[in-house]
Amino acid sequence: MPDIQPMAHAIRFLALDSILNAGEGHQGVPLGMAEIAATLYARHLKVDPDDPLWPDRDRVVLSNGHGSMLLYALLHLSGYSHVGIDALRSFRQLRAVCAGHPEIEQDAGIEITTGLLGQGIACAVGMAVAEARLAAEFGTELVDHRTWAFVGDGCLQEGMGQEAISLAGHLHLGKLTFLWDDNHITDDGDTALSISEDVPARFRAANWHVQKVDGHDITALDEAMAAATNDPRPSLIACRTVIARGIPRLEGQRGGHSAPLTPEDSAAMRAALGWGHPAFDVPAPIRADWSAAMAQGAARHASWQDRLANHPKAERFRRWQSGILPGIWATTEARLASHAAGSTTPRATIQSSGDVCDALATDLPETLVLCADLEAPTNHKRSRTAFTSRDRSGSYVHCGVREHLMGAMTCGIAAHGGLRPINVTYLAFADYERAAMRMAALMGLPALFVFSHDSIGVGSNGPTHQPVEILASFRAMPNMRVFRPSGAVETAEAWQIAMERRDGPSLLALSKQPAAQVRLNVAENLTRRGAYVLGDRNAARDLTLIATGTEVGLAVEAQQRLAQMGHHAAVVSMPCWELFAEQEERYQRQVLGKAPRIAIEAAVRFGWDRWLRPGDRFIGMDGFGASASAEVLYDHFGLSVSNIVKIARSLLGH
Amino acid sequence: MPDIQPMAHAIRFLALDSILNAGEGHQGVPLGMAEIAATLYARHLKVDPDDPLWPDRDRVVLSNGHGSMLLYALLHLSGYSHVGIDALRSFRQLRAVCAGHPEIEQDAGIEITTGLLGQGIACAVGMAVAEARLAAEFGTELVDHRTWAFVGDGCLQEGMGQEAISLAGHLHLGKLTFLWDDNHITDDGDTALSISEDVPARFRAANWHVQKVDGHDITALDEAMAAATNDPRPSLIACRTVIARGIPRLEGQRGGHSAPLTPEDSAAMRAALGWGHPAFDVPAPIRADWSAAMAQGAARHASWQDRLANHPKAERFRRWQSGILPGIWATTEARLASHAAGSTTPRATIQSSGDVCDALATDLPETLVLCADLEAPTNHKRSRTAFTSRDRSGSYVHCGVREHLMGAMTCGIAAHGGLRPINVTYLAFADYERAAMRMAALMGLPALFVFSHDSIGVGSNGPTHQPVEILASFRAMPNMRVFRPSGAVETAEAWQIAMERRDGPSLLALSKQPAAQVRLNVAENLTRRGAYVLGDRNAARDLTLIATGTEVGLAVEAQQRLAQMGHHAAVVSMPCWELFAEQEERYQRQVLGKAPRIAIEAAVRFGWDRWLRPGDRFIGMDGFGASASAEVLYDHFGLSVSNIVKIARSLLGH
Repeated sequence: MPDIQPMAHAIRFLALDSILNAGEGHQGVPLGMAEIAATLYARHLKVDPDDPLWPDRDRVVLSNGHGSMLLYALLHLSGYSHVGIDALRSFRQLRAVCAGHPEIEQDAGIEITTGLLGQGIACAVGMAVAEARLAAEFGTELVDHRTWAFVGDGCLQEGMGQEAISLAGHLHLGKLTFLWDDNHITDDGDTALSISEDVPARFRAANWHVQKVDGHDITALDEAMAAATNDPRPSLIACRTVIARGIPRLEGQRGGHSAPLTPEDSAAMRAALGWGHPAFDVPAPIRADWSAAMAQGAARHASWQDRLANHPKAERFRRWQSGILPGIWATTEARLASHAAGSTTPRATIQSSGDVCDALATDLPETLVLCADLEAPTNHKRSRTAFTSRDRSGSYVHCGVREHLMGAMTCGIAAHGGLRPINVTYLAFADYERAAMRMAALMGLPALFVFSHDSIGVGSNGPTHQPVEILASFRAMPNMRVFRPSGAVETAEAWQIAMERRDGPSLLALSKQPAAQVRLNVAENLTRRGAYVLGDRNAARDLTLIATGTEVGLAVEAQQRLAQMGHHAAVVSMPCWELFAEQEERYQRQVLGKAPRIAIEAAVRFGWDRWLRPGDRFIGMDGFGASASAEVLYDHFGLSVSNIVKIARSLLGH
Repeated sequence: MPDIQPMAHAIRFLALDSILNAGEGHQGVPLGMAEIAATLYARHLKVDPDDPLWPDRDRVVLSNGHGSMLLYALLHLSGYSHVGIDALRSFRQLRAVCAGHPEIEQDAGIEITTGLLGQGIACAVGMAVAEARLAAEFGTELVDHRTWAFVGDGCLQEGMGQEAISLAGHLHLGKLTFLWDDNHITDDGDTALSISEDVPARFRAANWHVQKVDGHDITALDEAMAAATNDPRPSLIACRTVIARGIPRLEGQRGGHSAPLTPEDSAAMRAALGWGHPAFDVPAPIRADWSAAMAQGAARHASWQDRLANHPKAERFRRWQSGILPGIWATTEARLASHAAGSTTPRATIQSSGDVCDALATDLPETLVLCADLEAPTNHKRSRTAFTSRDRSGSYVHCGVREHLMGAMTCGIAAHGGLRPINVTYLAFADYERAAMRMAALMGLPALFVFSHDSIGVGSNGPTHQPVEILASFRAMPNMRVFRPSGAVETAEAWQIAMERRDGPSLLALSKQPAAQVRLNVAENLTRRGAYVLGDRNAARDLTLIATGTEVGLAVEAQQRLAQMGHHAAVVSMPCWELFAEQEERYQRQVLGKAPRIAIEAAVRFGWDRWLRPGDRFIGMDGFGASASAEVLYDHFGLSVSNIVKIARSLLGH
């Protein structure tokens, strides 16, 4: 067995040299966790650096992402070709693979973007769920890997950290291990400034396997990792470490976290640890030890490939992993659309969404629904069984009242690959998981966020539960597609588009209140256009009503009443701004027309000016909602056919 | 002593009758917690229903806000005049004081808006901090009250619930008691579906006093509340309850939570509990018992008023409670402005904000700063000492890495009264506390949220930490004023406006990167106008550059370069959209002018179309940021003087 200590020192010095070279960085983690990291990679981790995308690899998450140089040094020493010495030298520079915080690049061994505290460990829970679900589907001969997360104090102070502990314990995610950098220092100084609880006790209370070790004692770490692997529970290894270990001036100090390093620090650490090598120079024997250690992964990968080649489910496995939709997708799509069009009865779009989700339980079995304790009002479990600690075959995860965790799990599942996560709750709770949804958008992950209770249509539960600004807040988010479908057909179409999307997340804002079925024609998926004219798009018009969601029904009624008065209004349904913005200008002009416009949405105006000109009108909310029935509220806030007609007529000079 | 059981049944039946009358509601909590609530109000709570605003009253928070009828029934029976029988009969109707979830109305005894799970208990931590801080300032003869929170399973599953437990334990908030409705049921059914941990152990790990009682055993509850009061630690009373207790069909069932009630349920509960009275009828003896129980509060209130009358700090106490700024405010304001104007050196606006915060440490000592483990980079502690478990006189709370809690604490402190909370962290973490900030906006609470690291100016920490859409997301939020000041003067002005505001929260988005001091004239607080022309507002212009924050400095430089080319550009600094939107149209027209416009902001365009016309341009971000130095990034994304000049010239036809 190679000696781990020099391998750990190689991490330490590569991190030091890279941070000094960059002029800034966070040395605390790479210097403090070098032994932990080296022991994990060299003795326990199952990866093949020659094929970073091997589906059955162990997943590594650096939840304390500010310590990114720990990961980059590891990937370099392990032999990931994207992380050569040049990459380390470009740490924190524009377009560098070695960014300030890890940015997902799985080809380089960077499994997921981390940096905002707590996100990483919550993603790790999602990865462990994905592994368990896939193992149930394909057997342990194809799916049998672990998820390891490096964890800082901050991650465990964040509420989402507790959500992660709680649900991982509940679901018995035995292949999940947290390596806690218990260094007693946060940005403000000693952790005692803001925390005095018994952190391991929280893990024990949630049925985790808990070990405490000296984080610089390689033998102890090795044994603890072996014990974690053998224990059926998720494991916490609380590693007591010294932050910035190796730099005499900073060891165990607040400044150890990220105080600027000097050449003197480098000299002092080289002297202290007897490291006579120049910057970025790793002696050949240490490199050889790293190569030898990582070679085991290649061997395991090779035998896995043999098993896959002969596996009866190999084709299915490959398709799930590829993210490509199945051959029956075109049929599915047609069936969904025609089923949706078959219903002329007003129906809440969250119900129509449940219908689609039911159909995909069989047609797209890699879908995995996550829901935050709202099974009954959101209707997305009907055709699914629960994924539990005893039954991993279910495709519905009861996440409990833990929205932020659920959002991050969605990212973790999507980043893991092999499954399509569907995140379900009320739109009012989107604020709780917004930071995780932003991560999905930033990473470009194919995830679907389905939200019910989209507006004042929530009714008498009142303004806390009534989104008014939440649609705008997500339309503002880069790379997030926001759909607010008008009825069953657009709901099915939005699902189709979301399932086909590979480069980012989609959000469906759906109604509790019944939606009129304003569209029955399904010859073309018009939602792909983002907005379109309902009915004859070439008809002459003296007014354009633009609406989304259930307000399209109001617009159609207003159109009819206006017609009786001799006014020709076109109704534009605009389920997705982002897709409409991508259309050719000619199409946009055609849809929006030259006539005066009224936009109608049970939400704030913010953002709508993009589609309106001076003189055009907006009918919506100019503040928070209230507690009363949905019907009363729609009327109270002027979201009524009669008010639309009144404003339309005033706009037309009547 | 009156018999509590009939008093509890009165709660139960008023809740039942009101929910039946409304046609919907959540009976689980009021029926399950009736004994707990009656014991608390009749035996332990210090309130005077004749003066709901008595500053030294105990605070009650219904964190499981869906059970609002518990609170309304209590307030009715306790004698709060705003909650008469008519109010109960109007439960869940438009404008009713008895809204679907509790909406803050302190005149009626409703201390705070609750409903989104977890918010209430986190607010309660803020209230307990406020009490401790004020007691240190004014002594226990004026400030000595407790905070009681009714808590459901959902609140304790939410991550922010753990943040609350953790910090309350750390800060030894001994006057805080959680009454946990441990009924084993959430919306999805048995709690075992999604949680299997030892919840009380989490409290014990965080140094809470923990008791377990039968939640229907009045004697046990009474003793437990007394013990909680006597223990120096925060207390959890885990009350094992039966959800919907009293309705045979629903007791202990999933449907107990909120399944629609029927007249048969009413008859069955009346029969089961031997309650022969008609709907909404409370027998006189029970009403008399309630009156007698609540009379103690009036007596305590009277003696407190005597103490206040003779207290040397009475005037100061009254001013702090009133929220009115001190007499020296005009001087403070002038001093802040002139100090800010004295600095011509480029300086990060977060530093300038720290200067203001320093000055207010003495001039506005009721300010209480909360910060989430970012003391050093946010600079708002310099003139303050920490509020700790041993020293309550400090005006700076180290909240740890717990942003969501911190946001809700801010609400709790503001709702408590007597202090002005200032919430400080990075703008990227605003997403973590957004749901709490929305509550501040919804409640109209005077709170200030100060965020540093406002943009790609964050530099090489990369896109996770670089807000691009967060400004827009808060500009979309009703009743939230968003400021992005250009330099020291506007920063001081924004603080002044925020401190003067009484009806809602303000947000400051401040820079890590140095800001040019584009304005030195402080004759008028121009930030009050929301936007204004820098320099001569009547000068002829052939172009208008509109910018916010540090981009105003770029606009001024571009203006100078354009002038050398013979182009007259006006520069509009627009620190606050909401205030500008409130100005007269004439002023708005004057500021924006008729010339072509270029808006410049290191953020997404979303929302900017409000101020732009077809043909106008926007220079900003169209996606997420990247990891590199701030200077490189500003240049890379076209936020540079040369790019502004180039686009200006093209707009002018060159």
